[in-house]
Amino acid sequence: MQTKYQLDEKEIPKKWYNIMADLPNKPQPGLHPGTKQPLGPEDLAPLFPMALIEQEVSLEKYIDIPEEILDILTMWRPTPLFRAHRLEKAIGTKSKIYYKYEGVSPAGSHKPNTAVAQAYYNKKEGVKRLTTETGAGQWGSSLAMAGSILGLDVKVYMVKVSYEQKPYRRALMQAWGADVLASPSNQTQSGRSILEKSPDSQGSLGIAISEAVEEAAQNPEAKYALGSVLNHVLLHQTIIGEECIKQMAMTPDYPDVVIASAGGGSNFAGIAFPYLREKIAGKDIRVVAVEPTACPTLTKGEFSYDFGDTVGLTPMVKMYTLGHEFMPAGIHAGGLRYHGMAPIVSQLFHDNLIEAVSLEQAKIFEGAAVFAKAEGIIPAPESAHAVQGAIEEAKKYDAEGQSKTILFNLSGHGHFDMSAYTQYFTGNLEDSTLSEIKLKESLSSLPKV
Amino acid sequence: MQTKYQLDEKEIPKKWYNIMADLPNKPQPGLHPGTKQPLGPEDLAPLFPMALIEQEVSLEKYIDIPEEILDILTMWRPTPLFRAHRLEKAIGTKSKIYYKYEGVSPAGSHKPNTAVAQAYYNKKEGVKRLTTETGAGQWGSSLAMAGSILGLDVKVYMVKVSYEQKPYRRALMQAWGADVLASPSNQTQSGRSILEKSPDSQGSLGIAISEAVEEAAQNPEAKYALGSVLNHVLLHQTIIGEECIKQMAMTPDYPDVVIASAGGGSNFAGIAFPYLREKIAGKDIRVVAVEPTACPTLTKGEFSYDFGDTVGLTPMVKMYTLGHEFMPAGIHAGGLRYHGMAPIVSQLFHDNLIEAVSLEQAKIFEGAAVFAKAEGIIPAPESAHAVQGAIEEAKKYDAEGQSKTILFNLSGHGHFDMSAYTQYFTGNLEDSTLSEIKLKESLSSLPKV
Repeated sequence: MQTKYQLDEKEIPKKWYNIMADLPNKPQPGLHPGTKQPLGPEDLAPLFPMALIEQEVSLEKYIDIPEEILDILTMWRPTPLFRAHRLEKAIGTKSKIYYKYEGVSPAGSHKPNTAVAQAYYNKKEGVKRLTTETGAGQWGSSLAMAGSILGLDVKVYMVKVSYEQKPYRRALMQAWGADVLASPSNQTQSGRSILEKSPDSQGSLGIAISEAVEEAAQNPEAKYALGSVLNHVLLHQTIIGEECIKQMAMTPDYPDVVIASAGGGSNFAGIAFPYLREKIAGKDIRVVAVEPTACPTLTKGEFSYDFGDTVGLTPMVKMYTLGHEFMPAGIHAGGLRYHGMAPIVSQLFHDNLIEAVSLEQAKIFEGAAVFAKAEGIIPAPESAHAVQGAIEEAKKYDAEGQSKTILFNLSGHGHFDMSAYTQYFTGNLEDSTLSEIKLKESLSSLPKV
Repeated sequence: MQTKYQLDEKEIPKKWYNIMADLPNKPQPGLHPGTKQPLGPEDLAPLFPMALIEQEVSLEKYIDIPEEILDILTMWRPTPLFRAHRLEKAIGTKSKIYYKYEGVSPAGSHKPNTAVAQAYYNKKEGVKRLTTETGAGQWGSSLAMAGSILGLDVKVYMVKVSYEQKPYRRALMQAWGADVLASPSNQTQSGRSILEKSPDSQGSLGIAISEAVEEAAQNPEAKYALGSVLNHVLLHQTIIGEECIKQMAMTPDYPDVVIASAGGGSNFAGIAFPYLREKIAGKDIRVVAVEPTACPTLTKGEFSYDFGDTVGLTPMVKMYTLGHEFMPAGIHAGGLRYHGMAPIVSQLFHDNLIEAVSLEQAKIFEGAAVFAKAEGIIPAPESAHAVQGAIEEAKKYDAEGQSKTILFNLSGHGHFDMSAYTQYFTGNLEDSTLSEIKLKESLSSLPKV
């Protein structure tokens, strides 16, 4: 009874898949926040190296992964694919459940797939320092790791409340040599102006983005790195799905349903895009994004132009959004608390190529606990959305008397999220109910284009 | 430039190596704590299943690993072997450094190698519940994981001070369905008698062992499991070294020095015993155990009969010991704070087949930080002893103008030890100096046999 499907290192995919080439409808262009005109490469040049800007707008179907990037990725890639025999038994389903496990990376999630690529291209173009923001710390620690391996300084603006509440994630970034600041900081104009108005500000991802972008824009040696949403970030994650396709070919099965959690959209894109290539080519596959009910971007948002950050300094992109002023409940899946969704993922949803469901926080911890006991791996709260999504799909098929093959992306482990499990086990999970009134208010403030 | 040497799953070793068959001098037998007579299998039967007792006393050179155990181990095994190119560059050595990485197991260390085996044999002999003790929680969480996969109840007596200070490790055990109690508890006579005398007792590993042993001895459905020291535990870890030998054969090199940290001796045995087989057969290999200066069992202990626990309830074994009353400073490498050393490892040291060095806590965090930045993996404080041991060997050879091949065991990651890193980065590591006076006192209380 085979459980693990391990691809030989020589079989690692050598190309990223660019779904832009195959999309029936391309996403609308990003707009300059001031002029509201479509963005050109020159608008992005202060923030990103040219190679990444080219990837951002490329329509080439495949893009070669440089050997130097593969050298680093093979520290932990190819990642394993597992058949969840024990989970199937625990929930009593007739369906077959497979999962791809990205938690084997040194940072514990899929994020290093793009962190390494971004650090590589920046280094190659002479950049000395990368700036970024981080909330819970998964992205910041992945970039810190990539920077430390490639010899780039990394400066992380960490949302102050997380900086104080999550000293272990902070220590992880410091262990990889990153400079970690509590945001708002007094090192940027954005930070100082916030602190002037609210000296006790606990910060927000929006403020931290503003600080990181400001520093990169003003310093010729520094560039900015983002962990999700952008086309090139999603592109770098497709190595996940390309590996899956090879690994599923080692099994007797082919997925009927592909499932991933969706925050900004990068781990979802990673596993889903290569399968969407097959779906667009005619394969009968369902592709499901799972989001928290506390931040239901696809399931309750509007398909509209909106800012990427809270304060409205970034370009506007056409996406599903809850409004850039939307503040979700403080759920533990910090990586899924983003008001928007990657433009490509949004377009796919708009065109009915993918589905979306939203799940309650208590429900996803229930699924995570069943999974941990059965499979031995503790899911990150973000990834637990995919776990519970898979469990619910299996049960739905059982109720219909059908047996299907379900594949999901276990994007990371929960080693740094055990306080959330403690709250769950002691019955102390905080209420994460969505305020429909606040959502309505936030949606009403969407910018007019 | 190859960095990772990944063994195909089909190549996983199918036999454990039992070094007892090859030892020039066998360890002295364990003695009954009351009668001081050599222990027989009947003395161990209340605590361990017969299959493990047989392994404990076996002189067979190889013992087959049951298919069912391999099925579970292959969830994460074979584990990778890495060439530490980036570390070599960072420290500027001419030697080649390789490391075996055991942190890829779901519990994050080598401990599940024996936890799974012990749970399997217990389950097979009809045991319903395993009891054990845990300090920092690495062993407790590994047994919890094994129990959850194999369908055995696991009850962990966790030293009270750790129970309170390490809620995340506790949550990890609970996620795997274990029943975790603060020790001393009121569920055993041992616990109650301690609490009567000292209601505020913070507990100790010795007390927790007494509680776990008492419950197993009195309950026909329960047995006891230990995470190190015993022959059968060391045996189960030899899969590490057997994999290493196959993986090193994929490189152009052969180790001149094999290094591991040593607490009770199990991760050391894991990588070292298969190489000691080759050394005993004539190969020129140095084998080095690294321990903390705060608990220098091999480097400053006496080779003497002593109790395995603090209160003197367990059998007496002939080993290097600091005295069963020795209380080391509260270093972060909790897994290395044991007063004794596995009898086999002790015998090997006594017979000059292995060497030992001790390192300061501040020094091992220095090495861990260099390693983390270079290699991208955060070592557990225990494993950091092996890291720094390897760095110092490399520098020593450099000073002598020699270039050697160094192999060490990175027994686990430090995801649950980030508070220790925080203390290191902020200059707040506590003093871990050994009190020579207390050591002398403790050694003077060794039992007379």
